[in-house]
Amino acid sequence: MRTDSVYGVVLAGGSGQRFWPLSRELSPKQMLTVFGTESLIAQAVHRVDSVVEAVYIVTNERLFDELRNHLSSHADRSLQGVRYLQEPMPKNTAPAIAFAAATLELVDPGAVMIVLPSDHLLETGDLWRDCLESAVKLAEADYLVTIGIAPTRPDTGYGYIQGGPALEEFAVRDAHPRQAARFVEKPDTAHAEEFLASGEYYWNAGIFVMRAARLLEELEADAATAPIAETSRWIAGVQGTDGFDADVARQRFGDLESISIDHAVMERSNRVAVIPAGLKWSDVGSLLALETIADPDDLGTVRVGRGVDIDSRDSIVYSTDRLVATLGIENLLVVDTADATLVLPKERAQDVRLVVEALKAIDAEEVVQPKVSLRPWGSWTSLLKGPGFQIKLLEIDPGQKPSLQRHRHRSEHWIVVSGTALVTRDDEHIEVHVNESAFIPIGAVHRIENCGKVPLKVIEVQVGEYLLDDDIVRIEDDWHRER
Amino acid sequence: MRTDSVYGVVLAGGSGQRFWPLSRELSPKQMLTVFGTESLIAQAVHRVDSVVEAVYIVTNERLFDELRNHLSSHADRSLQGVRYLQEPMPKNTAPAIAFAAATLELVDPGAVMIVLPSDHLLETGDLWRDCLESAVKLAEADYLVTIGIAPTRPDTGYGYIQGGPALEEFAVRDAHPRQAARFVEKPDTAHAEEFLASGEYYWNAGIFVMRAARLLEELEADAATAPIAETSRWIAGVQGTDGFDADVARQRFGDLESISIDHAVMERSNRVAVIPAGLKWSDVGSLLALETIADPDDLGTVRVGRGVDIDSRDSIVYSTDRLVATLGIENLLVVDTADATLVLPKERAQDVRLVVEALKAIDAEEVVQPKVSLRPWGSWTSLLKGPGFQIKLLEIDPGQKPSLQRHRHRSEHWIVVSGTALVTRDDEHIEVHVNESAFIPIGAVHRIENCGKVPLKVIEVQVGEYLLDDDIVRIEDDWHRER
Repeated sequence: MRTDSVYGVVLAGGSGQRFWPLSRELSPKQMLTVFGTESLIAQAVHRVDSVVEAVYIVTNERLFDELRNHLSSHADRSLQGVRYLQEPMPKNTAPAIAFAAATLELVDPGAVMIVLPSDHLLETGDLWRDCLESAVKLAEADYLVTIGIAPTRPDTGYGYIQGGPALEEFAVRDAHPRQAARFVEKPDTAHAEEFLASGEYYWNAGIFVMRAARLLEELEADAATAPIAETSRWIAGVQGTDGFDADVARQRFGDLESISIDHAVMERSNRVAVIPAGLKWSDVGSLLALETIADPDDLGTVRVGRGVDIDSRDSIVYSTDRLVATLGIENLLVVDTADATLVLPKERAQDVRLVVEALKAIDAEEVVQPKVSLRPWGSWTSLLKGPGFQIKLLEIDPGQKPSLQRHRHRSEHWIVVSGTALVTRDDEHIEVHVNESAFIPIGAVHRIENCGKVPLKVIEVQVGEYLLDDDIVRIEDDWHRER
Repeated sequence: MRTDSVYGVVLAGGSGQRFWPLSRELSPKQMLTVFGTESLIAQAVHRVDSVVEAVYIVTNERLFDELRNHLSSHADRSLQGVRYLQEPMPKNTAPAIAFAAATLELVDPGAVMIVLPSDHLLETGDLWRDCLESAVKLAEADYLVTIGIAPTRPDTGYGYIQGGPALEEFAVRDAHPRQAARFVEKPDTAHAEEFLASGEYYWNAGIFVMRAARLLEELEADAATAPIAETSRWIAGVQGTDGFDADVARQRFGDLESISIDHAVMERSNRVAVIPAGLKWSDVGSLLALETIADPDDLGTVRVGRGVDIDSRDSIVYSTDRLVATLGIENLLVVDTADATLVLPKERAQDVRLVVEALKAIDAEEVVQPKVSLRPWGSWTSLLKGPGFQIKLLEIDPGQKPSLQRHRHRSEHWIVVSGTALVTRDDEHIEVHVNESAFIPIGAVHRIENCGKVPLKVIEVQVGEYLLDDDIVRIEDDWHRER
């Protein structure tokens, strides 16, 4: 298929509270590496990167740094090469996609967008590529296209799309598009069973293919949705110029109706196509999805991580690194991370946001901050905080270096426990080998670089009265971060 | 009351698997500080130390170091002044008490022993002291005395003692002893209810008062128990002399019947007294005892530690330092420590040993080793282990110093994050202040001392190929430890 003027648009503004404690505000669901060898967002990028000119990640100010750190920490060039669009604030999918469309339209007036969520699982392969090729052909003929997943069970948690007359002239090998007859919200069980039996209904997986300009026209055609297109066009036009005022943008974007692309466009337009596809797909909707990543034991309990389960039935016990033991539990979910543990019945998996809200109310930092923070140069892990000191483990990839920086309130001791470091301290440049250490006094301009060929591991002991992350004055940074 | 020739004998050989993960093999139940401001064993010592000449802790080789470290880490002189008796191996209570009796008889032929468990809770005060005074009088008149707790519920988990005719001539104020009519093992519910209603039965709390020589005579009087007295007398006679052979002692002690003092003596003797006492008492028999240490919330859930419980009923959520959240659980026990978490229904609390056994089978070190290890000089906490390195937090009390030592396989970096250290490194003596560090190369003879007036906190980063605790060559030690 042709790839010029085709762009991937990955929607990555979601905060994924339902996966706490595995996900955090600053490490949301799309960054989870639990499901497969790559994170969900990396999988999403790879789902389209070979068939597009460029992949755009649509996110917001709060998540931008974290997502960029996450994706650029992969050696993978296609992940480092993605572009970022920052919505002024998180809204629903219609404003997010409109904002991407308005930006793309300025770059390439004929732009076709393949829009997809950043936090789902989807089988790829020949059929997926056939679907995309067919979808792009349809989009060029001004269709708004969605990929419909052939249902395998009468699920009441998904939206459905009913297929209409065939659009066989746009078929590509195994991809046979149809007009979309109607969109149905989450049905009751009777309807879901009827839909499944009919063979005419498909799961709405949130995957859309359309010309950018065409989407904006559709939004403009209805007075209710026209402001979404107008505001998106205005922000796209002024962003990066002197005329851009972040506060005004935030206010105008914030005034937009919070509406999904389904409601705003797909359900209303009379030129919608669906391409049915028998692809394995999951929206990874709750912690129950952990059930799929390992085989159950004889009593139906799925375990990941160290520990034992005695007489425990039909439960999910997931631990990232600590020891967890269970005895005689039934139908429970136990999710354990380095700094927080959650216990709940499986049937309450949809309600984890209640826990997150309650934890926010007591200012629990475990809701916001992950234990391991990915950086473009590697990662750091918080080991211990005490009065006046903090200990971190820094892991720096070969050839990488955090910024040249200084601190106003803390000194730092670096002890190399693996690899070799090149330490800059004011005018000095010191090679520090395994089992050697360096001391950075308060105020000293410093940098650490992995000048070796293997990962560099450094124990950093910070001592000072004020130890928060914002005490960093960046002087030079490979990633142009201000702080 | 007179205290000369009266001795406390605290039985502290138990391993307390039922409290995992709060207790560990090397930090058993009697060292728990969960129930009150002091550990259970410290409470046991204080229960008798004001009315005796000396307190003896009966323990075994495996626990001796840990118990001594634990008790000598208290500033409290009475805890530092206890004496230790090491059984050649853990046996039941009859051999343990006989061994204590044989040792005491050599020290003081008229010795009266107040024997008590190290891991129970007991209300003390005037009535308790009256009981002890009365018990010592009875013991001197050759009675084997037990304190019987007035039952408050028909508990089927305890043994009962039936009271017989009064022994009013030995009464002391509110303590009115009676002859013991009979000992009853854990009864069924009907009997337990009958016992409670009768007012004639008391809980057997494992507290015994008797002359040492009298106990040995009782054991000798029966051919079945005579070897317990003989072997105990033999070990007591040779221990600490050239004639002592640890292997022979272990073999002979190991050959003894594993029998409780109740079975061996109390149930058989015709000169047993019971002093009924309306004292609050608990054997702290399982993790369910955690229910008593905080008030339940509106849904009946008892929580200790950081976190939230949403819609969680009649559960116990106990966390030592991490965040634990629950949602919609019922009748569960969630026990969380720095390195391990246990989840089980409350009704399975008696079966925690099954978990411990399963964890032993997979060599989980969390069964053996506590996260924080108390030492006579303070404590150390394991923060992180990685390939070739290990990080500990050392906390050293003012004026204290770990041993002068060296390592064959590791170097150490010490970073002072609080207080002031005097570091010995071969021939050097260096004062290391907060935010300064010292490096100890492999093989160097070294010591760290808290030469200041406030607790010294040091981050120790060990680097080497072999990092286990047995790579310590002790050259000098304030506590005469070999390693």
